[in-house]
Amino acid sequence: MKSAVYRGPGDVRIEEKPEPELQQPTDAVIRVTHTAICGSDLWFYRGHEEHEEGSGVGHEPMGIVEEVGEDVTSVQPGDRVLVPFAYSCGECEFCRKGIHTACVDGGFFGPHGDETGGAQAEKVRVLHADGTVVRVPERYADDEETLKSLLPLTDVMSTGHHAAVLADLEAGDTAVVIGDGAVGLCGVLAAKRIGAERIIAVGHHEDRLEVARELGATDTVSSRGQEAVEEVLELTHGGANHVLECVGAASALETAAQVARPGGSIGAVGVPHVESADFLQPIFYKNLSFSAGGAPVRNYIEELMDDVLQGTLDPSPILTKTVDLDGVPEGYQAMDDREAIKVMVKVDE
Amino acid sequence: MKSAVYRGPGDVRIEEKPEPELQQPTDAVIRVTHTAICGSDLWFYRGHEEHEEGSGVGHEPMGIVEEVGEDVTSVQPGDRVLVPFAYSCGECEFCRKGIHTACVDGGFFGPHGDETGGAQAEKVRVLHADGTVVRVPERYADDEETLKSLLPLTDVMSTGHHAAVLADLEAGDTAVVIGDGAVGLCGVLAAKRIGAERIIAVGHHEDRLEVARELGATDTVSSRGQEAVEEVLELTHGGANHVLECVGAASALETAAQVARPGGSIGAVGVPHVESADFLQPIFYKNLSFSAGGAPVRNYIEELMDDVLQGTLDPSPILTKTVDLDGVPEGYQAMDDREAIKVMVKVDE
Repeated sequence: MKSAVYRGPGDVRIEEKPEPELQQPTDAVIRVTHTAICGSDLWFYRGHEEHEEGSGVGHEPMGIVEEVGEDVTSVQPGDRVLVPFAYSCGECEFCRKGIHTACVDGGFFGPHGDETGGAQAEKVRVLHADGTVVRVPERYADDEETLKSLLPLTDVMSTGHHAAVLADLEAGDTAVVIGDGAVGLCGVLAAKRIGAERIIAVGHHEDRLEVARELGATDTVSSRGQEAVEEVLELTHGGANHVLECVGAASALETAAQVARPGGSIGAVGVPHVESADFLQPIFYKNLSFSAGGAPVRNYIEELMDDVLQGTLDPSPILTKTVDLDGVPEGYQAMDDREAIKVMVKVDE
Repeated sequence: MKSAVYRGPGDVRIEEKPEPELQQPTDAVIRVTHTAICGSDLWFYRGHEEHEEGSGVGHEPMGIVEEVGEDVTSVQPGDRVLVPFAYSCGECEFCRKGIHTACVDGGFFGPHGDETGGAQAEKVRVLHADGTVVRVPERYADDEETLKSLLPLTDVMSTGHHAAVLADLEAGDTAVVIGDGAVGLCGVLAAKRIGAERIIAVGHHEDRLEVARELGATDTVSSRGQEAVEEVLELTHGGANHVLECVGAASALETAAQVARPGGSIGAVGVPHVESADFLQPIFYKNLSFSAGGAPVRNYIEELMDDVLQGTLDPSPILTKTVDLDGVPEGYQAMDDREAIKVMVKVDE
């Protein structure tokens, strides 16, 4: 089968790989119909993260169940399913606590987990299928428009929601969202969905901040560094109680800590690529709460799917470019060049 | 009057300074009867923090009200009072929220705040007396034993309690306390007071860990680095949900993050002296909550005083050495040499 493969910084290729097979009775094999390229894929694409050459890449699959192990009861061949970027058993202490990304028997797709292979591929093996995949109700299972709105739930929409949850955001609150990438924009959507009264999006790209406004941001800040901090402090009369950090870079963490109001909460979901502890000083001196982590997508995906299917949530505007599987290298390039916010890969086209 | 003064690393002297005077109608002048030397004073004593030469030092005063401004209503001359290490207005958004250390009109004693002077002195000026000082009930006001038990409430006991609050510790929980200094030992006391079922104290000094056991630690870990982490992980079968970080050094933050259970909470009250963000990786990969800050002593001091006066809380064992004001330089030396856990200064002896 065809799979996107990492061959070094700036070099992702489509190559032939062996088809995945069932190995455990709890496995499923999914024929991927849709997947995506993630901002976090750019960390290795840009050489900021090391990965083994030849690893499969991608971690946001949606598709059709092709085969299931004999212990799998929640889905059957032919079902359309969403697959979170992390697989999880669904039964351990941490899955029951709703933090499936800490599952004692869990793992990841893409170059972090070669048990599964990458999800920018024709097929993917899902371990612990019952604890991981979520079936799309049959009446929506072939509606392309709905599927495009559901695809971001496999990672970025759930991740934006996680940022809001970690930042203790509730209806009526003011939220500051740091980052205008796909996760930041999903953070805006999540804040809007929760009922935030004011949503201040902070980013560096006018076109993306325009999307942020369309998705619900009431204010946008496009300046950088200290200037951005001062702008937010002025807009919020001294800082926001709820800050969603959706980047993971040092500057984003520092901005998040600086714009938080004393006693406030930061929810940080950007995979951290940070060396300096500078963000710690404002956390300490303002008595902030800083909660971070990879989104437990499996914990959120059903409630978010309900809203997508009802038409009250639609993250599809973040998917600004579509390629087929052969177009994946072009998709990486477009994201690296910031020509696309997020690229959808329609595998079966 | 006599005051301890910073003259450079390793050099604290007793010098003559002008007596403080009322400057605002909300001020009080306190004749200091008891004060203390704090582990955080060692940061400048050891040259890890810069301070202006000639600054008054110390921030943990207890004493007798000598004079009050005309707007002060809560205390009067002759009252025995405890003074938190930070003064606060008591009326702003942050004081009302219980984070007096973020008071918009607040500040600190010691070299951080020359408005007030240092508290290792015969007298100290307290700004916003009504929002800051707490009166000791008259029947206990001259009982030396009670006063020794109350003195640590001005900082370290309230700080240990803050760590427990930030770590979301509740009755029946397991707590890990990082640090066997005065704050760590007060963290043990705070955890015990809250009703933690298991309290694991992590430190480097057998004699202090012995005190930790006397104060309520059920287990102690004296190994260092990765070995200590593994010991705690084994004791807790994979990490603790509540970790009190009571040091502020990089290694302590890293240990705290490494021994936390996925989904757990860290309360960090050690003033951070950290350059590397290494502690961030486990926070992210385990979906931890990290809350940090200087203790809002004024918010806690009354409830803690109630327990001291009832005899159910006694932090006095941490005060292992007593000096008079002239003995303050000797007291710094004893703490720097780790001969004393914490030094009480009896100013009026």
